[in-house]
Amino acid sequence: MKKRIVIALGGNALGKTPEEQLKLVKKTAKNIVELALDGFDIIVTHGNGPQVGMINLAMETSHEEGVTPSVPFAEVGAMSQGYIGYHLQQSIQKELLKHHMRKSCITLITQVLVDKEDPAFKNPTKPIGDFYTKAQALKLTKEKGYVMKEDAGRGYRRVVASPKPVKIIESGIIRDLLEDHNIVIAAGGGGIPVVEKWNSLRGIDAVIDKDLTSARLACEVKADIFLILTAVDKVYLNYGKEDQQGLNFMSLKEAKQYIEEGQFSEGSMLPKVEACMDFVRHRRTGQAIITSLDRSLDALLGKTGTVITRKVDQNGKK
Amino acid sequence: MKKRIVIALGGNALGKTPEEQLKLVKKTAKNIVELALDGFDIIVTHGNGPQVGMINLAMETSHEEGVTPSVPFAEVGAMSQGYIGYHLQQSIQKELLKHHMRKSCITLITQVLVDKEDPAFKNPTKPIGDFYTKAQALKLTKEKGYVMKEDAGRGYRRVVASPKPVKIIESGIIRDLLEDHNIVIAAGGGGIPVVEKWNSLRGIDAVIDKDLTSARLACEVKADIFLILTAVDKVYLNYGKEDQQGLNFMSLKEAKQYIEEGQFSEGSMLPKVEACMDFVRHRRTGQAIITSLDRSLDALLGKTGTVITRKVDQNGKK
Repeated sequence: MKKRIVIALGGNALGKTPEEQLKLVKKTAKNIVELALDGFDIIVTHGNGPQVGMINLAMETSHEEGVTPSVPFAEVGAMSQGYIGYHLQQSIQKELLKHHMRKSCITLITQVLVDKEDPAFKNPTKPIGDFYTKAQALKLTKEKGYVMKEDAGRGYRRVVASPKPVKIIESGIIRDLLEDHNIVIAAGGGGIPVVEKWNSLRGIDAVIDKDLTSARLACEVKADIFLILTAVDKVYLNYGKEDQQGLNFMSLKEAKQYIEEGQFSEGSMLPKVEACMDFVRHRRTGQAIITSLDRSLDALLGKTGTVITRKVDQNGKK
Repeated sequence: MKKRIVIALGGNALGKTPEEQLKLVKKTAKNIVELALDGFDIIVTHGNGPQVGMINLAMETSHEEGVTPSVPFAEVGAMSQGYIGYHLQQSIQKELLKHHMRKSCITLITQVLVDKEDPAFKNPTKPIGDFYTKAQALKLTKEKGYVMKEDAGRGYRRVVASPKPVKIIESGIIRDLLEDHNIVIAAGGGGIPVVEKWNSLRGIDAVIDKDLTSARLACEVKADIFLILTAVDKVYLNYGKEDQQGLNFMSLKEAKQYIEEGQFSEGSMLPKVEACMDFVRHRRTGQAIITSLDRSLDALLGKTGTVITRKVDQNGKK
């Protein structure tokens, strides 16, 4: 039986322009296909911060010019899934061909259910789109009901809620595709957030944390390993200080304690650690790993990265 | 054995704004799920003219303002697949649920191989994007190598080639998904055009006719029926004239003759008839049907629509 892995890529690792992205996914694709060669069944998820930012900004700019209609953020998210998925799948297909692997790599447009009573909707925190003057901000609030917040002296920005992912709408078919050993790109940008209303789904302007969505998906497809790729090779205590200390292992209990100590920065390492905790809490035998793209193979061999499990490894530190 | 059908929706039937599209796909979804209830295995393809136009215009406008990077047309096509697929799959999922059908409906980002030696590249004809002055047009040609053409006195527009589809890159997995009775949305907007270069695929600025791509896909998945939905209930001779005459059947030979007579207008009915001819030429037992969304069920029951087969039906006209 092949091991099942969900790999979460950071949106920042995908670059800021189509040209950059096309270059950067090549290296990512090589690493992913190396894992496929090693016998893993793979789901790739990814962030979309800079990319959905670019598309949203273009839509807003063009709409303000009166050239195109207003496009809701959920639809912009769907566009970003198509855009990023296309580049990723093309590069992965190339690597598969190079290694004569008869696997398909495909991108699925993915919706993620959130609870419309999620407390996050009462306190939107995630800034999206352009900066505006106070007058413009007031106008947007009046006309479109946007929540606008002052952003560190740089002007006003729209903020949307970041609710918790409840369920990946397409996880059943993703699991089937994985069983047939396809490489599936899914849940891009944390998924398109939808709420249930009158027995149907409806897109909503929100941003779901991509690591939390990836963890949810990893649970739903019964993954063995949940791998978060980020800019550092492992999780550090006292990060950036003289006495910083890399962690090889973290139990749920330890992770909780470090969080209480304020070891992990919000919007950066904290959601990643929380996503890993969420995964191992629900998958008793699951392993979550945080490392960098370059070290992903080494991390799976136990040579680097931070492994998060329910309990401390019996063998102690490596 | 269930019958396999490829349904090609027109991009114009999807509306011009996200709001319109979300409304219009509801009716489309009802019709598609009716066919699923009738026992068909279904692939949905669709045009993207107005939608890719909207996204491309926003990208160009915003890029001219210096706000966002330049985004190639292939990437814009990928965005439109995500955007349209999201709405279609959400509406179809709702209808499936309503009828308690345990099927998945998913959107696959789809690339379509074209030949880089296709003669169409020597004579680009498909206008995309905004109108420009002559000076701006010259500048774009110089800076980006765009081919710009004067457009009926309204200014200059970029034109791209419309090469023939050679192969649907993802057709193998689409066939697998169909075998498992999923409803698959694929090849949106004629697919993302790619050419082969150094053993890898590369996106290219072009527009592939969505009906030709749909016919190709219908051949590759061995569909029984290829259904093109358009604004009219059937194909007409002398269309719009006093003596217009609806066609119930057309053989390949008849279709060829009508084309020679100039019965079908370019950019409208002609490519649809040609796509149907392409399908029945390659699928001996296949049936191609041209009708409207409203009449699709009736057409499959033989009550309306124009059926195109290799030979004239033995029973003559209905």
